[in-house]
Amino acid sequence: MRILYHYPLCPYSRKIRLILAEKKLDFTTQIERYWEKRPEFLQLNLAGHVPVLIDLNGSVLATSVAIAEYLEEAYPDRPLIGEGLPQRAEVRRLMAWFDEQFGHGISKCLVFEKNIKRYMKLTGNTGPDSNAIRQAKGALHTHLDYISWLVDRRNWLAGDHFSLADITAAAHLSVIDYLGDVPWESHSLAKEWYSRIKSRPTFRTFLQDRVPGLVPASHYLDLDF
Amino acid sequence: MRILYHYPLCPYSRKIRLILAEKKLDFTTQIERYWEKRPEFLQLNLAGHVPVLIDLNGSVLATSVAIAEYLEEAYPDRPLIGEGLPQRAEVRRLMAWFDEQFGHGISKCLVFEKNIKRYMKLTGNTGPDSNAIRQAKGALHTHLDYISWLVDRRNWLAGDHFSLADITAAAHLSVIDYLGDVPWESHSLAKEWYSRIKSRPTFRTFLQDRVPGLVPASHYLDLDF
Repeated sequence: MRILYHYPLCPYSRKIRLILAEKKLDFTTQIERYWEKRPEFLQLNLAGHVPVLIDLNGSVLATSVAIAEYLEEAYPDRPLIGEGLPQRAEVRRLMAWFDEQFGHGISKCLVFEKNIKRYMKLTGNTGPDSNAIRQAKGALHTHLDYISWLVDRRNWLAGDHFSLADITAAAHLSVIDYLGDVPWESHSLAKEWYSRIKSRPTFRTFLQDRVPGLVPASHYLDLDF
Repeated sequence: MRILYHYPLCPYSRKIRLILAEKKLDFTTQIERYWEKRPEFLQLNLAGHVPVLIDLNGSVLATSVAIAEYLEEAYPDRPLIGEGLPQRAEVRRLMAWFDEQFGHGISKCLVFEKNIKRYMKLTGNTGPDSNAIRQAKGALHTHLDYISWLVDRRNWLAGDHFSLADITAAAHLSVIDYLGDVPWESHSLAKEWYSRIKSRPTFRTFLQDRVPGLVPASHYLDLDF
């Protein structure tokens, strides 16, 4: 059986969980508290990050973009990067946009401040940094506007078909939704797009995710949020 | 003719310049001072980053990872991601490692502090942040150790063949080498690997790069540094 080392609120892990589910590939999960730098885990991935996937043949795959491309090549049924060079470039551009702009500026920041920071032994750790949280939540509006702009012109983020662009954006948004930090009410088009993804069967596993001491927002389970 | 919008000290732009040169694809370059957010440039790439490539057919391609994958698919002669799924995953893992760990922590930081910051109208801008520079230069040793570890076991970073992993790592290192910040003397294996890349004809264009007010380190042009 495939094994995915992940953390429930890691958006990059959620991206791979969604890809595996959309491609109907069986896998078991193992939660990795990656900040503890467990030596056996560092043997699998020197960078010490989740996700790490061990495929059926024993291949150890690390880094979400490399895993995503691997899965697309190894399991080409139910393609998620699309066809045609411009289309594939657009999917990859948006995937990088959400992983980098959104990931570094918003989702990683909010999960770190609100969840992971409490486990780390940082010098002078005085709890969540309210300035960093305010800045991340402010930047979120720009991204929701961009999603709205895209789905006002296209069926899905990168074009006619559901793709890795939608998966990546939804993976990042879903962790912030758990934290209750998405201002859905002022972004109706983005909300409509997200509700289409949230009602896909492959998304349901996220709704069961829990981390100790951090209850999901009241609407997190609600498909009609 | 293809047009590449780039900035001479942008490591992500250098990655694409090297790929184009290795694949023997003709292109002209246009320097983009991307921090000025020129409206015509933002029309090409909303994210406002270089590199942006306009291919022969008019396709506009943005974000270095999407451009790299596009070029590999559009021009499969002289492949740079390799063959076989595990090998391709390893190339992509290392590409992401250098673009993210090295790029965010070191090369982007040093180029920003030593070059780009002087052009930006930042509140309270008091010149280069010596703490940030010290931290980036400290982290550089870990990456050079990692490169040495890899080339002690493999011919090139990802295995037997020169690949996008080598191109990406060399692109990031080359901008820091321009700044004179690479401690080559204490990393002889990494230096030997870099000198092999530096002597490739495709690398020569970098040696002509200049930015106003910032003279390259004395050994920057020297193939026998």
